[in-house]
Amino acid sequence: MRIIRTIQEMRAETEARRRAGETVGMVPTMGFFHEGHLSLMRRARAECGMVVVSLFVNPTQFGPGEDLAAYPKDFERDCALAAAEGVDAMFAPEAGEMYAGDHATFVNVERLTGNLCGASRPVHFRGVATVVAKLFNACRPQRAYFGLKDYQQVRVIETMIRDLNFDIELVRCPIVREPDGVAMSSRNSYLSAEERRAATILRRSLVAAGKRIKEGARDGAAIARELREAIETEPLARVDYAEVVDAESLAPLGRIHGAALLAVAVRIGRARLIDNLVVET
Amino acid sequence: MRIIRTIQEMRAETEARRRAGETVGMVPTMGFFHEGHLSLMRRARAECGMVVVSLFVNPTQFGPGEDLAAYPKDFERDCALAAAEGVDAMFAPEAGEMYAGDHATFVNVERLTGNLCGASRPVHFRGVATVVAKLFNACRPQRAYFGLKDYQQVRVIETMIRDLNFDIELVRCPIVREPDGVAMSSRNSYLSAEERRAATILRRSLVAAGKRIKEGARDGAAIARELREAIETEPLARVDYAEVVDAESLAPLGRIHGAALLAVAVRIGRARLIDNLVVET
Repeated sequence: MRIIRTIQEMRAETEARRRAGETVGMVPTMGFFHEGHLSLMRRARAECGMVVVSLFVNPTQFGPGEDLAAYPKDFERDCALAAAEGVDAMFAPEAGEMYAGDHATFVNVERLTGNLCGASRPVHFRGVATVVAKLFNACRPQRAYFGLKDYQQVRVIETMIRDLNFDIELVRCPIVREPDGVAMSSRNSYLSAEERRAATILRRSLVAAGKRIKEGARDGAAIARELREAIETEPLARVDYAEVVDAESLAPLGRIHGAALLAVAVRIGRARLIDNLVVET
Repeated sequence: MRIIRTIQEMRAETEARRRAGETVGMVPTMGFFHEGHLSLMRRARAECGMVVVSLFVNPTQFGPGEDLAAYPKDFERDCALAAAEGVDAMFAPEAGEMYAGDHATFVNVERLTGNLCGASRPVHFRGVATVVAKLFNACRPQRAYFGLKDYQQVRVIETMIRDLNFDIELVRCPIVREPDGVAMSSRNSYLSAEERRAATILRRSLVAAGKRIKEGARDGAAIARELREAIETEPLARVDYAEVVDAESLAPLGRIHGAALLAVAVRIGRARLIDNLVVET
């Protein structure tokens, strides 16, 4: 596996493979890999001639007071894990390679970014869309693999791809969970053993709310309230949001119909954890 | 010359030529061609294996009350002129091909867009950067040709190319002028004969101000004032702005040094005309 530090070198590498007729698959990450990341790499490996994993902890998607400085890292372990999955190239630029001192250009995906994580993290999706546009242009993949734990991010990037005419297929990949149901996340490393047990409340509450819908409940606000109350039965959990929205537009659903997204963000200890469930009615 | 209406067809066309090792040169336009546009096509023709001209009157770069509906068009004449310059493909999408009904993604180049034309046209550069990003992804040129009459636009697109890692070289092309010095513009067609004569005040005032700097004047605010007063000697002219700014950052220059941009926007009749002059000190 090659480790690539510059945009110029990254471009030359994928351009050569594209010209040779190969499909380039990309997995954008912030590193500290877990099974979720590895599942994306495996899927890309199965479907593409060349697999590029980017590892960049993107400063513009963190707000003031968020965990940019504390974000967990283990570059050597990440390289070993990616190499074991058959990844061809790890694109790991320094911050200065990605952002000029007078960087001024930002990609905003409006409408989809005002609620859910966008409400409590106002610059987050601007940073995500901007860095993903940059990574797409640096790596030029035909396919990009994203995990559905970050459901809102998936919708934001799908919309950016469509609206800016990127010639890239976003491949949605399922959430990978621990045996007790907790969604894998690099931020789970922030949790104490007790907090880690408390984190099971996210999935348990989502499944219970999903069951209510399957049984016929259709009042979106009522289900959202039940979801919040279920999470609040866990004393260590502080709910950031618990919402029921349309799975495509992410607009709040008064009456549930079509595909509904149940989405939650919960603070436990110093971690802010997210999870979601799509329920088809 | 092929006329191409869809992004998919445009992509297929340039991708094939790129794979064959050719350089793709692009000239983004809003049509109603004059010698300024044709000079860009000629330069692209001389430097590139394939020349694509886009013709799209982009709604998102016009504000409310601006001249979107009135913008002059003559598609058949434009096609004949482009074909005569040896253009390979004219990319002329309908508005619905470029913008989905729920289009939500915009590219903002901050800092460079708050003053000059950005002050009186607040959504203009957001629309320009967004459509150029879309056109770049639809046409995938290695080179893009822009005229320096729209100097601020050139700086905005250069910055977007750098910040979003587009693998494209922006080629700056000189302003093309009528024999009396008026910069060529599709909007000159809005002028009556009397207004057209009045329009010479822009260039004459810029040249006089540039001469003052060449003679040693260094007070940016004073030169800007003189520039405004010179334009105001023409009764038909209403100054939108007359400024002296740094030619790279576009920040106002208190004391003139390095490369200074003298830039003006002037309303004459129903036209809003712009012109500029770079003075090296």
